[in-house]
Amino acid sequence: MSTLIRNGRIITAEQDYTADVLIEKETITAIGSSLQMKADKVIDASGKYVIPGGIDVHTHMDMPFGGTTSSDDFETGTRAAAFGGTTCLIDFAIQTKGQKIREALDIWWKKGEISTIDFSLHMIVTDLPEAHLEDMNEMVREGITSFKLFMAYPGVLMVDDATIYRAMKKTAENGALVCMHAENGSVIDMFVQKAIAEGKKAPIYHALTRPTTAEGEAVNRAIALAQMAGAPVYIVHLSSADALEKVAEARDRGIPAFAETCPQYLLLSIEDMERPDFEGAKYVFTPPLREKWHQEKLWAGIKKNTLQVVSTDHCPFCFKEQKELGRESFAKIPNGGPGVENRLQLLFHHGVNMGRISVNRWVEIVSTAPAKMFGLYPRKGTISIGSDADVVIWDPNTEHTISASTHHMRVDYSMFEGFKVKGNAETILSRGEIIADKGTWFGKAGRGKFIKRDVFAGAWK
Amino acid sequence: MSTLIRNGRIITAEQDYTADVLIEKETITAIGSSLQMKADKVIDASGKYVIPGGIDVHTHMDMPFGGTTSSDDFETGTRAAAFGGTTCLIDFAIQTKGQKIREALDIWWKKGEISTIDFSLHMIVTDLPEAHLEDMNEMVREGITSFKLFMAYPGVLMVDDATIYRAMKKTAENGALVCMHAENGSVIDMFVQKAIAEGKKAPIYHALTRPTTAEGEAVNRAIALAQMAGAPVYIVHLSSADALEKVAEARDRGIPAFAETCPQYLLLSIEDMERPDFEGAKYVFTPPLREKWHQEKLWAGIKKNTLQVVSTDHCPFCFKEQKELGRESFAKIPNGGPGVENRLQLLFHHGVNMGRISVNRWVEIVSTAPAKMFGLYPRKGTISIGSDADVVIWDPNTEHTISASTHHMRVDYSMFEGFKVKGNAETILSRGEIIADKGTWFGKAGRGKFIKRDVFAGAWK
Amino acid sequence: MSTLIRNGRIITAEQDYTADVLIEKETITAIGSSLQMKADKVIDASGKYVIPGGIDVHTHMDMPFGGTTSSDDFETGTRAAAFGGTTCLIDFAIQTKGQKIREALDIWWKKGEISTIDFSLHMIVTDLPEAHLEDMNEMVREGITSFKLFMAYPGVLMVDDATIYRAMKKTAENGALVCMHAENGSVIDMFVQKAIAEGKKAPIYHALTRPTTAEGEAVNRAIALAQMAGAPVYIVHLSSADALEKVAEARDRGIPAFAETCPQYLLLSIEDMERPDFEGAKYVFTPPLREKWHQEKLWAGIKKNTLQVVSTDHCPFCFKEQKELGRESFAKIPNGGPGVENRLQLLFHHGVNMGRISVNRWVEIVSTAPAKMFGLYPRKGTISIGSDADVVIWDPNTEHTISASTHHMRVDYSMFEGFKVKGNAETILSRGEIIADKGTWFGKAGRGKFIKRDVFAGAWK
Amino acid sequence: MSTLIRNGRIITAEQDYTADVLIEKETITAIGSSLQMKADKVIDASGKYVIPGGIDVHTHMDMPFGGTTSSDDFETGTRAAAFGGTTCLIDFAIQTKGQKIREALDIWWKKGEISTIDFSLHMIVTDLPEAHLEDMNEMVREGITSFKLFMAYPGVLMVDDATIYRAMKKTAENGALVCMHAENGSVIDMFVQKAIAEGKKAPIYHALTRPTTAEGEAVNRAIALAQMAGAPVYIVHLSSADALEKVAEARDRGIPAFAETCPQYLLLSIEDMERPDFEGAKYVFTPPLREKWHQEKLWAGIKKNTLQVVSTDHCPFCFKEQKELGRESFAKIPNGGPGVENRLQLLFHHGVNMGRISVNRWVEIVSTAPAKMFGLYPRKGTISIGSDADVVIWDPNTEHTISASTHHMRVDYSMFEGFKVKGNAETILSRGEIIADKGTWFGKAGRGKFIKRDVFAGAWK
Repeated sequence: MSTLIRNGRIITAEQDYTADVLIEKETITAIGSSLQMKADKVIDASGKYVIPGGIDVHTHMDMPFGGTTSSDDFETGTRAAAFGGTTCLIDFAIQTKGQKIREALDIWWKKGEISTIDFSLHMIVTDLPEAHLEDMNEMVREGITSFKLFMAYPGVLMVDDATIYRAMKKTAENGALVCMHAENGSVIDMFVQKAIAEGKKAPIYHALTRPTTAEGEAVNRAIALAQMAGAPVYIVHLSSADALEKVAEARDRGIPAFAETCPQYLLLSIEDMERPDFEGAKYVFTPPLREKWHQEKLWAGIKKNTLQVVSTDHCPFCFKEQKELGRESFAKIPNGGPGVENRLQLLFHHGVNMGRISVNRWVEIVSTAPAKMFGLYPRKGTISIGSDADVVIWDPNTEHTISASTHHMRVDYSMFEGFKVKGNAETILSRGEIIADKGTWFGKAGRGKFIKRDVFAGAWK
Repeated sequence: MSTLIRNGRIITAEQDYTADVLIEKETITAIGSSLQMKADKVIDASGKYVIPGGIDVHTHMDMPFGGTTSSDDFETGTRAAAFGGTTCLIDFAIQTKGQKIREALDIWWKKGEISTIDFSLHMIVTDLPEAHLEDMNEMVREGITSFKLFMAYPGVLMVDDATIYRAMKKTAENGALVCMHAENGSVIDMFVQKAIAEGKKAPIYHALTRPTTAEGEAVNRAIALAQMAGAPVYIVHLSSADALEKVAEARDRGIPAFAETCPQYLLLSIEDMERPDFEGAKYVFTPPLREKWHQEKLWAGIKKNTLQVVSTDHCPFCFKEQKELGRESFAKIPNGGPGVENRLQLLFHHGVNMGRISVNRWVEIVSTAPAKMFGLYPRKGTISIGSDADVVIWDPNTEHTISASTHHMRVDYSMFEGFKVKGNAETILSRGEIIADKGTWFGKAGRGKFIKRDVFAGAWK
Repeated sequence: MSTLIRNGRIITAEQDYTADVLIEKETITAIGSSLQMKADKVIDASGKYVIPGGIDVHTHMDMPFGGTTSSDDFETGTRAAAFGGTTCLIDFAIQTKGQKIREALDIWWKKGEISTIDFSLHMIVTDLPEAHLEDMNEMVREGITSFKLFMAYPGVLMVDDATIYRAMKKTAENGALVCMHAENGSVIDMFVQKAIAEGKKAPIYHALTRPTTAEGEAVNRAIALAQMAGAPVYIVHLSSADALEKVAEARDRGIPAFAETCPQYLLLSIEDMERPDFEGAKYVFTPPLREKWHQEKLWAGIKKNTLQVVSTDHCPFCFKEQKELGRESFAKIPNGGPGVENRLQLLFHHGVNMGRISVNRWVEIVSTAPAKMFGLYPRKGTISIGSDADVVIWDPNTEHTISASTHHMRVDYSMFEGFKVKGNAETILSRGEIIADKGTWFGKAGRGKFIKRDVFAGAWK
Repeated sequence: MSTLIRNGRIITAEQDYTADVLIEKETITAIGSSLQMKADKVIDASGKYVIPGGIDVHTHMDMPFGGTTSSDDFETGTRAAAFGGTTCLIDFAIQTKGQKIREALDIWWKKGEISTIDFSLHMIVTDLPEAHLEDMNEMVREGITSFKLFMAYPGVLMVDDATIYRAMKKTAENGALVCMHAENGSVIDMFVQKAIAEGKKAPIYHALTRPTTAEGEAVNRAIALAQMAGAPVYIVHLSSADALEKVAEARDRGIPAFAETCPQYLLLSIEDMERPDFEGAKYVFTPPLREKWHQEKLWAGIKKNTLQVVSTDHCPFCFKEQKELGRESFAKIPNGGPGVENRLQLLFHHGVNMGRISVNRWVEIVSTAPAKMFGLYPRKGTISIGSDADVVIWDPNTEHTISASTHHMRVDYSMFEGFKVKGNAETILSRGEIIADKGTWFGKAGRGKFIKRDVFAGAWK
């Protein structure tokens, strides 16, 4: 099976040129002007962009949370991702307290078997006695080369500074990368208790009990711990200027601190949490939405590479029956929102079309940098010879309005309902196979593979 | 009883002029040129400075630590302080876990009864359940308007972030000030365990297991917690550039963050901990001595008011029998060093004589700022009408060599042995009474009073 | 002649206490509680503050500008100053191109002969060939220990970088201080020409042609030149956050850079320049008013001592006939505004009453710091024994509305018309003589003396 | 004519993969794995890197200076460049005062006719009356899309701030880029005069009279002027931490400020200027070499993209007869040093081999970024379809010692004499033609073309 994509404008993190791309079996094998090779299938990409498929390194499919489960599983979630131009994602396996890490991995491998695109997993560690540190090395050998730790959610996911340090010290040896949920959970708990005691239970209090200072503090601490352990660190879903400054300051000192943000922090703000009729609950996730002025600081952070990656933290819960569990108190609202489908669209429109970033930087933050950061490059994340043919043909001119009524995610609302965007994925190839084309789905459950990842190539930037 | 000090050069934090000072009973009642009043006693201060007595806000007299007790009690320690020009100090009462705060206060009041100069106490809080928060208000009513918390020494003194926040929130209401020992104890414990496991037990490892990053992190966290609580915070014994930068950065944002350093951090460095024959143990205290280059950063911090106060953290243990408890492992060396007697001398010589600070700034950091910070001003800390006649006549020209063989502290070594200094206290008055004069002691145990302090006058700077 | 001020609350830059102050002849000779001395005159200051008289280090009396002359001379201007609590000022002698510095001094000494309060002069240097550098030393010997240079007004007052460097190099030797008008005049000239060419001639264009970046740039350059010359530098009338940051950054590096701002930059903003009926012209001075957000940055700069002094840049021109000279083009409006009378009132009300600064800091910025900076201390700038009895009795509770109809400045409008302030000078003593009391004038022309100043005591802060 | 480069490891600013590259005529037309196309010539690049040819944007061939002329002309200089892996350079046409810009261009076009590789020109502007601003647009139409201005060399090349602003304002309209020599020439002149007056005439005084503060100041000013003009700015040959901080600070605020440094600032230091026997003169260029500690700051600036480009400022003068012109005074030493041949070698060895930067970043700073910055991209600066086949086959393992006895530059010494480097260009193609191979020269004078450049693509980073 071979495919020839004719005449597209090929965009990578660096390049921008027009050529033909030849795919043989699952791999890109030639790029040239007017290639004379024959192919089983020819796609005319004139006037379109040819980009490496998006890589979303932060999703939560089929995840239990507070008595319910996120509404997308690996089939529906990856199908939605693909429609939006994302051809690979990294989800999270979760070790529960007392559980062996290996058992957690097996459970999540099982969940991932129905994936329609390639995927990998980070391992969330909640319990790390000295005796089990060796298990981290086993994970790395399995291609799980990143571990997530929580500085928030005391009593559930939060680990103390000694555990964080211990885990980082281990990654300093084995080359893996610690991903950090950085909020000071102890203090946030005090704010939450106080709010509830005072009867402040509406969704907006989810935000008001999680100040940006608590995020900035935790980011600073995470980086200090990493520095003492001699390890790099990657801050997930960075949401505020306070946190951004801490990353910037560390990078200025040459510390290998990295961070991602998400479209919701770039485009939504705390006002959304005050929507009437409990609709604010649709925007309850962690960290919470911030005051509007933070948005431009985050965009600036993307522009100058203080932020390397934009992921979605896709963790959908339906408004009906799921978000509604928290009608009586924000503390019972399942935390999370849907977004895996809209990342490339939103960043292209509000980033490239609005003049905030170049088209190369767009490809870099949605695909190339995630691949390099998490050991998928050059197999994924670029258009070059030998790379997996995870290729998206992107129409820069098509316009549509984001809506729950048309999206492919299995959730009954959209955080970006009514957003008009120009630019969308038209044809999506996963390892050479067209899995979606002009809105029609050709993929199938289980065709996605688990990808063993290399260790963090820390030197790259 | 009245005393007239004739013709001295009066130095305050702002002023520098020559005049006579009249003291009636315990109080300064008149200042003038050629005052015509009669007095019971006349002191000729020509060619000398007349300054407000030093105030040392960080001492540990008669303090139990690791099975022994600091070697100065309130009599010997205050006597030594007075000889060095310090006429008031604030020591620490220590609540042990499970103990009522009030009980701790009573114990330390008792210890202080033999003081030869006026004194007050900070309250060290190690255990602060919700139910006992109200006890903090009682302390304030008793004139104990500052509380010290530890971010180090897990299992002994360390409290968690939630406790710190709770205490700060309470001081935000009652006007007291939280003093913070800022080092990340959890991580330091990991370093210590590792060093000991590797057989690294010499005194130098006390320093090598307490990196400056651990101090900088904790300072940043303490300030973030204070900011969230809406309270000021005072960092004790700040020792490193890392920590200093965090204070500076907060002050630049207008946050009421304050800090003290100590002469040992300004004048000694980590090399001293490698002295042979276990003599490095003489320099084992916390935070540890740092690399030499930190010294000039700290001096600069004093000059531009990032550091407001210089205290001593006087906590003497004899080399024989006390420091020696740690011959087998640095972790068993009692933490602390002597210094209450030398503070004004060292800062005058290395600050004023060396051109680093003005004579006014010298008075400010050793007396005026401590008084303002801790609610003693204007009763103490200045030369003005109505103030307690805690007055020191300072000879700027006398020279001597600091030595354990001549000092008045009850400890068998000096951290500053062999340091030559120019400038020393000649006559020391405490509430109008001459308690020492040209090396002769006239004071007596028990004449010092416990001073009820006002709450922090946060607005002052 | 002696005066006893009874029972006032004496406020200095550091102190705050209640006592009696005895003045004999021109000097403060005693301070005490219930002083038993007799005096020719006794003033009851109960409930009032007793402060050192204000020192305004930036005024332009009787100054030629663009074919007219500032409307206050040294008699009317100093009288107004005194009514507002200012008992000493430093005006500017101006060397015109080609003129010998000495001649300029003689002209301005002559102008000052009618002063009602003590005064001194800075020397504005516009022409400094190598051969005349020696004249700067002569000035210092005459007590003119500060020189002002302009980076703005090309062709009139502006000097080039080589001249600035040369002058600074000379002050590095003789101890004097260079005061800098820091705006990039070359670029501003381009903006002005362009605006006029485009017919943009209303008063607001005075501000729009002088961007804050032009001020920030010049401040940075002035400080760099000073650093290379090994000299301190004092930035006059700093107006913007851009400029403030440059001073702060230099001070953080330990560079002796100092700056003043003026009440107009703290309390007025660019909107005032758009007042109808040409009234915007009342606010035409240089640097111009800025956007409102700069105000809080400047207040923060005062609080943390990035700005040491607040002066007025008093340079009044009547709206009628003087400001009106520029009806046809903003470039012809005489630059300057009145303010010498209102400085203490405005800073007390908007600083102390509004909680932005302490009462001690208020005294420091209006009196003590100016005195220390410009070699007048301790003769002026404090309440202490031996100091000139330039004393103001300040009623903190009296309220009034600032207005041209009641002020004492010889100018037909007030920049602060309608501002309500609480707190005003009640009794004003100049060298022991009551020159104004409760609104009645007792002073007279010519009683003020020219004060020879010491060189800059650079070490003080 | 076609060439097939087999099996090389292709390195671009982003990518790193193994493939074949097909060149037809002057252009890259296909890249693939095991390409089946036939070609006239096949090169086996196994074990070698295939990179885009280096682009040196700062050279001075055949340049008059102080009565002599730089010793390389466009033939010898470009030949040496090619041997070192550089296949395109941008030299400088120089307008002399009073000359029409167009005339300057014609003179330099003529000089360039003997170039062996493609080249372009920046235009140095020394005289820019209002009336001639339009000439800048003509240059842009000719493909001269960058202009260099001097803030140094008063009386010769230096222009005033108004001229700089005017030129920048024009580029803000026409899309060109201003390159700035940023040193405060006025102050430097004073230092030089003083040194000479004091008889300090050895080469070292060239450095001691040009302090880093004078560079930092000028960089700040250049950026401020650019900001006011709404134009980007590019700082040439940035040499010091002082200057770097100004660029970093501007970039943090989102200002489009860019900068290059040169290998000499990364690898040599002021000590080299004190070499005996007048050999210090070999290192006399502007800005001068700095203290050693600046080097690591500059490397860090490269790593985090504060510095985008490394050029050479190649401006060779023979030691004999040329440098010797300044035996009697450093002020007469022709300013400049040779380097065009060694740039890629030095940066590969000291950058990539030493672990300071990745191999991708190396390609970026020597080729891709220069191309993007100066309107040559994607024609030059990358390996992709449609690009000019300016391709270098780089042997990462070959070792040699840099020496004047073996280099190809027409100059009798090397600044890097004795430096051992690993990695060198093996085969050099210019638009598809092999011009050098394993040390043999196949190029010829005049084959290089003048390249019309596009305007600055300012958005790229």
